[in-house]
Amino acid sequence: MEMLIGGKKCPAAGGEVLNAINPATGEVIGTFPSAGKEDVERCLTLARQGAERWGAMSMDARTAVLENVPRVFEAHRDELCALLCAEMGKPIRQCGEDLDVTVEIFKNLCEEARHLAGSSFMDLSAAGCMGDVQFTRYEPLGVVACIAPFNFPFDTLTQKVAAALVMGNSVVIKPPTDVTLSLIRYTELLIEAGVPGDVAQIVTGHGADVGDMVVRSEKVDAISFTGSTEVGIEICRNSALYLHRMIMELGGNDPFVIFGDADLDHAVQECWMRLRNCGQTCCASKRYIVHNSVKNAFAEKLVQWLTGFKTGDPADPATDVGTLINERAAKEVEEQIAHTVRQGAKLLCGGERKGAFLTPAVLVDVTPDMDVAKDMEIFGPVFPIIGFDTEEEALALANQTSYGLNAGCMSGDMIRALRVASKLQAGTVVLNGCSTWRGPEIPFGGYKMSGLGREGGRYSLLTMSQEKTVAIRYVR
Amino acid sequence: MEMLIGGKKCPAAGGEVLNAINPATGEVIGTFPSAGKEDVERCLTLARQGAERWGAMSMDARTAVLENVPRVFEAHRDELCALLCAEMGKPIRQCGEDLDVTVEIFKNLCEEARHLAGSSFMDLSAAGCMGDVQFTRYEPLGVVACIAPFNFPFDTLTQKVAAALVMGNSVVIKPPTDVTLSLIRYTELLIEAGVPGDVAQIVTGHGADVGDMVVRSEKVDAISFTGSTEVGIEICRNSALYLHRMIMELGGNDPFVIFGDADLDHAVQECWMRLRNCGQTCCASKRYIVHNSVKNAFAEKLVQWLTGFKTGDPADPATDVGTLINERAAKEVEEQIAHTVRQGAKLLCGGERKGAFLTPAVLVDVTPDMDVAKDMEIFGPVFPIIGFDTEEEALALANQTSYGLNAGCMSGDMIRALRVASKLQAGTVVLNGCSTWRGPEIPFGGYKMSGLGREGGRYSLLTMSQEKTVAIRYVR
Amino acid sequence: MEMLIGGKKCPAAGGEVLNAINPATGEVIGTFPSAGKEDVERCLTLARQGAERWGAMSMDARTAVLENVPRVFEAHRDELCALLCAEMGKPIRQCGEDLDVTVEIFKNLCEEARHLAGSSFMDLSAAGCMGDVQFTRYEPLGVVACIAPFNFPFDTLTQKVAAALVMGNSVVIKPPTDVTLSLIRYTELLIEAGVPGDVAQIVTGHGADVGDMVVRSEKVDAISFTGSTEVGIEICRNSALYLHRMIMELGGNDPFVIFGDADLDHAVQECWMRLRNCGQTCCASKRYIVHNSVKNAFAEKLVQWLTGFKTGDPADPATDVGTLINERAAKEVEEQIAHTVRQGAKLLCGGERKGAFLTPAVLVDVTPDMDVAKDMEIFGPVFPIIGFDTEEEALALANQTSYGLNAGCMSGDMIRALRVASKLQAGTVVLNGCSTWRGPEIPFGGYKMSGLGREGGRYSLLTMSQEKTVAIRYVR
Amino acid sequence: MEMLIGGKKCPAAGGEVLNAINPATGEVIGTFPSAGKEDVERCLTLARQGAERWGAMSMDARTAVLENVPRVFEAHRDELCALLCAEMGKPIRQCGEDLDVTVEIFKNLCEEARHLAGSSFMDLSAAGCMGDVQFTRYEPLGVVACIAPFNFPFDTLTQKVAAALVMGNSVVIKPPTDVTLSLIRYTELLIEAGVPGDVAQIVTGHGADVGDMVVRSEKVDAISFTGSTEVGIEICRNSALYLHRMIMELGGNDPFVIFGDADLDHAVQECWMRLRNCGQTCCASKRYIVHNSVKNAFAEKLVQWLTGFKTGDPADPATDVGTLINERAAKEVEEQIAHTVRQGAKLLCGGERKGAFLTPAVLVDVTPDMDVAKDMEIFGPVFPIIGFDTEEEALALANQTSYGLNAGCMSGDMIRALRVASKLQAGTVVLNGCSTWRGPEIPFGGYKMSGLGREGGRYSLLTMSQEKTVAIRYVR
Repeated sequence: MEMLIGGKKCPAAGGEVLNAINPATGEVIGTFPSAGKEDVERCLTLARQGAERWGAMSMDARTAVLENVPRVFEAHRDELCALLCAEMGKPIRQCGEDLDVTVEIFKNLCEEARHLAGSSFMDLSAAGCMGDVQFTRYEPLGVVACIAPFNFPFDTLTQKVAAALVMGNSVVIKPPTDVTLSLIRYTELLIEAGVPGDVAQIVTGHGADVGDMVVRSEKVDAISFTGSTEVGIEICRNSALYLHRMIMELGGNDPFVIFGDADLDHAVQECWMRLRNCGQTCCASKRYIVHNSVKNAFAEKLVQWLTGFKTGDPADPATDVGTLINERAAKEVEEQIAHTVRQGAKLLCGGERKGAFLTPAVLVDVTPDMDVAKDMEIFGPVFPIIGFDTEEEALALANQTSYGLNAGCMSGDMIRALRVASKLQAGTVVLNGCSTWRGPEIPFGGYKMSGLGREGGRYSLLTMSQEKTVAIRYVR
Repeated sequence: MEMLIGGKKCPAAGGEVLNAINPATGEVIGTFPSAGKEDVERCLTLARQGAERWGAMSMDARTAVLENVPRVFEAHRDELCALLCAEMGKPIRQCGEDLDVTVEIFKNLCEEARHLAGSSFMDLSAAGCMGDVQFTRYEPLGVVACIAPFNFPFDTLTQKVAAALVMGNSVVIKPPTDVTLSLIRYTELLIEAGVPGDVAQIVTGHGADVGDMVVRSEKVDAISFTGSTEVGIEICRNSALYLHRMIMELGGNDPFVIFGDADLDHAVQECWMRLRNCGQTCCASKRYIVHNSVKNAFAEKLVQWLTGFKTGDPADPATDVGTLINERAAKEVEEQIAHTVRQGAKLLCGGERKGAFLTPAVLVDVTPDMDVAKDMEIFGPVFPIIGFDTEEEALALANQTSYGLNAGCMSGDMIRALRVASKLQAGTVVLNGCSTWRGPEIPFGGYKMSGLGREGGRYSLLTMSQEKTVAIRYVR
Repeated sequence: MEMLIGGKKCPAAGGEVLNAINPATGEVIGTFPSAGKEDVERCLTLARQGAERWGAMSMDARTAVLENVPRVFEAHRDELCALLCAEMGKPIRQCGEDLDVTVEIFKNLCEEARHLAGSSFMDLSAAGCMGDVQFTRYEPLGVVACIAPFNFPFDTLTQKVAAALVMGNSVVIKPPTDVTLSLIRYTELLIEAGVPGDVAQIVTGHGADVGDMVVRSEKVDAISFTGSTEVGIEICRNSALYLHRMIMELGGNDPFVIFGDADLDHAVQECWMRLRNCGQTCCASKRYIVHNSVKNAFAEKLVQWLTGFKTGDPADPATDVGTLINERAAKEVEEQIAHTVRQGAKLLCGGERKGAFLTPAVLVDVTPDMDVAKDMEIFGPVFPIIGFDTEEEALALANQTSYGLNAGCMSGDMIRALRVASKLQAGTVVLNGCSTWRGPEIPFGGYKMSGLGREGGRYSLLTMSQEKTVAIRYVR
Repeated sequence: MEMLIGGKKCPAAGGEVLNAINPATGEVIGTFPSAGKEDVERCLTLARQGAERWGAMSMDARTAVLENVPRVFEAHRDELCALLCAEMGKPIRQCGEDLDVTVEIFKNLCEEARHLAGSSFMDLSAAGCMGDVQFTRYEPLGVVACIAPFNFPFDTLTQKVAAALVMGNSVVIKPPTDVTLSLIRYTELLIEAGVPGDVAQIVTGHGADVGDMVVRSEKVDAISFTGSTEVGIEICRNSALYLHRMIMELGGNDPFVIFGDADLDHAVQECWMRLRNCGQTCCASKRYIVHNSVKNAFAEKLVQWLTGFKTGDPADPATDVGTLINERAAKEVEEQIAHTVRQGAKLLCGGERKGAFLTPAVLVDVTPDMDVAKDMEIFGPVFPIIGFDTEEEALALANQTSYGLNAGCMSGDMIRALRVASKLQAGTVVLNGCSTWRGPEIPFGGYKMSGLGREGGRYSLLTMSQEKTVAIRYVR
């Protein structure tokens, strides 16, 4: 496939290509350009032009175009799912779910933008300003670089792209190396739906290199990034010179606190969110902080429950667990399990790797001092169980990490749950469930090193615009 | 005492006066004018003038005046409490609590008004309106008639008066007949604090007569009423010709649903809100809907707990329960208890009347078909207990009334509590407590026949103003 | 045609019918039932059932149904326009414009409802409430009676119906007698789109009689009425007993203030909004308050400009001005012109009636004391011009009416215009244009006797719901 | 004077001090510690402890303390003004004005925080989430480093400090080197008012060094900086590793666009905002873009008007123009004038330097290509006048800078002004006045390289807190 620059499919100026590989089979399923500085510069120059025209259109005119996008995505549902499944080893059924969410996000953001109001401030100010008219309006930022992660490429990207487009910005998409083809196709469909070619573009290549070229540019006004904390920090550093507006959704090591009076069967069912997408979810519960009185019972139920899922060919609709994003990722998870076992934990089941496949693993006897109980985020289907005795201990454990994305808590006593919610250091606290929840309207984003800013509904729109104040003075 | 019209103390034009009586002693403690049509008309004419100047001042200028009011109230704390206690038989300690709340409400509403923002709408509209500037601003209504109830005269009136004044309206206060002196003094202090004499006025007399004269006037722009549903309906009917803006806080027969897994000791402690002010609270819990498994235990604990309170001289700081507002009211409650007993209920304790005093009563064996379980609101310290078996039954019982003010629910299972909350027909649903809660910021007001509109913080400000849209068109 | 009760077409129980008449031709174009008490009661009983099920559905489930409505309306565009044109004599081109607006309103309200957020209040309150969780949610009202006016029946009704439905209420439509067939068809299409038969119903007959039966019912929870101030007052009076929630959009006698430095050609073009729909628009500019220095020039340009429009057969796409709603209405306007001439005004052109047709009339030498300059609203294509010298005079003239719907102002000096805007007593003040503007998002509604409450976008949704507070206490 | 660490006055661990110098006289007026790494670390460690306790208090408890601050500031008004005047050469009268604004900001932010509401989201989400309870609450960030500029040290710092404190954070103040004594005193008064010693601290020294130590720390959660774009970029770069929350108010080169139909006398009076504080104002108008038809007239009036001001001893209440912040700053402005003259501009008057004093200068014949017309911000009393012919030219000139703080525009035609407002690239656009306006409620902050984020009223509170979402799931 080719990049999309100025609405045209084009190779890299230097002609280089990279291979897209199916992680389940190891087969090369296509190629994509490896862009150089020249390609990126050309793309960004066009993006500035696009931003100017697109941003000057009325909200009505823009949404008239953007309302086509959900329809076009749905019309290509099977094709998009098959491509995503092949490129990342995600079970085909889950690919379909992702697409549904993607369509819904696109629709929701366009709807919401059409009804966004600014503020008006009158007669509230210091003496002498009686009568002044002051109001605000939301204006586009200009060119927004959208840097997507590999795990939920369509929906995560859409949170950025739909919000950026509807608020009048042009977007330059930088896909993750491993899911480039799917996002090229995504961009093609945006253009098929009517988005101008200089308003939605994609540049491909080695993720880090292309990302860096995009970030280090004064032609860019804002960067919306979802990915690891390490890369997020690097982007912030490289962006400083340009004072880009930033939205960062980074890593997490979410706690799931289960009290002794919780419904254990319900708690185990919530573990599906850790299995889904082979554990590669930013807000999956990654640390199971379980009261000592039910710790063993929970572990047993969990191990038993895990036997009910089918690992295997991602393209098979019956498959529940596919591959990790690539073999290297699977090896890393394998090593993280081994490391934790070396630190004293016990592997109750799973953890066997075959290529990019890895069976779900349960780790018990995990203690607070182990890396996995603190900042070692495992991006795979692993369930480390850590016991606690008191509410204070549970909170200390949950908060002893530099991350602060989501957190989950289950307890029969909801007053306790609400008290715990107020003390958990996390952007989203889920009660009566695991941490994995990102509703379409709620603000989503991290405390501490898990990110900067919030996405979701109105919050996404605000990050993709700037508020201008207009003051008409001396009205008297 | 005299009325305050145009900032001056004045008698009724006809010279008539009425007596103010201490319900605990039966003594006459003062007199107040019985206003006629002429007095009311003069007051309203001045109120229109006052509204014009006051409403044209900046928010800063108005709050510079109004910020004195809490200070003046506090400086007269002892005097106000003693007067209130004497006039309504409310225990002196509770009079102090009311004054604290009053001061806090006044302060909060002024604070909040200084930061109230309107909305701005831009470029969101149909084709052709690109560029239009549209914003809103809050403007005063004009003259607001504030008709206060007797039970919490200072705080309830302040919710109206402070909001009306800070938003630029003039107010005409119509006190309840039984608590006229206290509110005359309240109005005097407003003026002492610097509120212009044509901006805050009080007209006194027979409540129904004076109220009616105020309501039937085209010089009034809005009516804020707290009182009974019957009188509320009458006001609505008489206001129709003038299309007055209306805010109505009316009666209630609040349910307090106690499930079998609730903390009964906590539930009993919550019953204080039914004892306080001798049960004369609009959002007191008036129907105790208790699971059959704990019904008897609850009744026993309640009877025992009631022995811990001191009934007697309202002026004694140790007193917990004073008189009802007057002997007639006490007789009515006595009759309502007798009526319920005639319908088959059993009086477990209390219910003995002496003048305006009445001992707290617990009624058991109350069944769903009795009047007290439906629309017979008892405005006194009475606890009717109704049993239930299932959640559905409890909901049916709670909702089988034409009222819908507040509701309370206690259950150890908060998911159940939240589910019940979504089905209770009430303006405010309190979980983990009785129904009596009216936080300073939250919207407070009734579903069904319990009222129209909401008061509280920002909501009070909105009811006391009108939103004007300004559209500047053809900006292109 | 028949009524729609419980999703079924049905005649009046008593069998009576009324004739629908084409005002341009006098021909009977159909009949409709004249409902009696029995019909209305049956309809309202079903409406309560409908409200219960519909209100318990999720917003997603409801909007999945309601999103069909715009499509169905558009699919029947020609049919609806032809029917509306025949029934009310509105030029066919304007019927099409009305339908476009109708579709847009329906779409907008559904969109906006999906993103409506409540408030959450935490830790803000008095000591002791630290930790309390308090939030609000919007809940349906129940059964909403939607009483539509004849002038813009589709769009005005949709402001009510779409908002009521999307917020979970059932609606009972009471059409204006003269435009009953069109609204029966409208209701049929709602049901065709999937709205349950007990959720959208229509009862027909003599407007006043049927309206009265609907209003005087405890089965109704809210009334949304657009129509005359007189009828509005009557409804308020009859509703009092039931404390129905009320939204009233009533009459207006909108001023259009034109200063000496205004662009007169632009001002004349704005007069189209007074010609459109034959002057039968609630927020048309009905009093032309023109600076004496340009008064004559404005009148001349206006008379000249009026020669450019085609009066005649409403079904002809070239027609600009059709009939009034019926001959009686045309006669009333004729008489209002004559009355004004008798009071001393001069008729510069127009005012000739033929059946329900009336040629546009310009009245000059109108003085401040004439009825037309105050509260005599003319619902027809009449332009009374009143001169003024100073800004104060203009404001006094503009505000010397008991109405306060919209107002328009044109001046080259926008600081003056903004100053005037702050002093005009009107719900919406339009600058740089005539008063006729009701953008899709802005609050629309009257000051003074022009109404109660606001409609439009978010405001419509709020009028069609009630806010419930949930407080979870003692979280500590 | 000493630093304030942990509530105690203390010298630098290394014992080093720096001199504070009066720029008007060159005299040393005091000394202050030059903090080292050890001091800063100790301060930040205490700040973390302070944040924990302070953030766990209720809003009521915090504001009970903070409400003392305005009183304490006012009680020390004369002392604070004299110190500020001596330390920065600002005319004493303007010092008083700054203090008034400071007190007002403190009061406003505390007021507003007490009424800040979060959002609640219910039943809006995808199928399956019906009944979920979702709400947000604002929580403190932790430790906020407040880095203040020298020009309006009290008010600018208060925008940060008051917002941070009221939202529950602890603050570490880093003063500008030249105004250290005043801010030490400011901090002492915070503590005198009751703010705990580990909640408000100040570390002093060479600005760049101390600032850098504060920024490069994981103990800090957020940085609020007002200062130059260069330093802002440096802070962003050094903060990247810690992902500090950032608010940046940076430089500006604000345009003031004056059309041919503007009121020139009013325009000239607006120039006071460029003279005030000797031109050292971030949002002063620094580029006078004047229509060619009135350019000369404006320049003449301006030169004439400038003769009416008194330059001299800052401590004299009659003085209008004092010194620049120090002699080096005055020399830099002198050189910037000379540079512009070398580029072809003509100096009409002023520009004479004597120590830190500099007479107000008017530059004409400034052309679009000169540095002063683009990104050379002059922080002194200099008026460069640039002519234009068309609206497009004016906009191009105004926007041809990498800055985008404020902008001003005057025109008799407000439709033009509003059109221009929508195209000016600036955070705040002032119409009918110069660019210098920062009302107490409005969002204030820059487009492009003028900053990140917004301050002012509610916006300040939001930057000083993080929004947590709490979701209670499976309520059904």
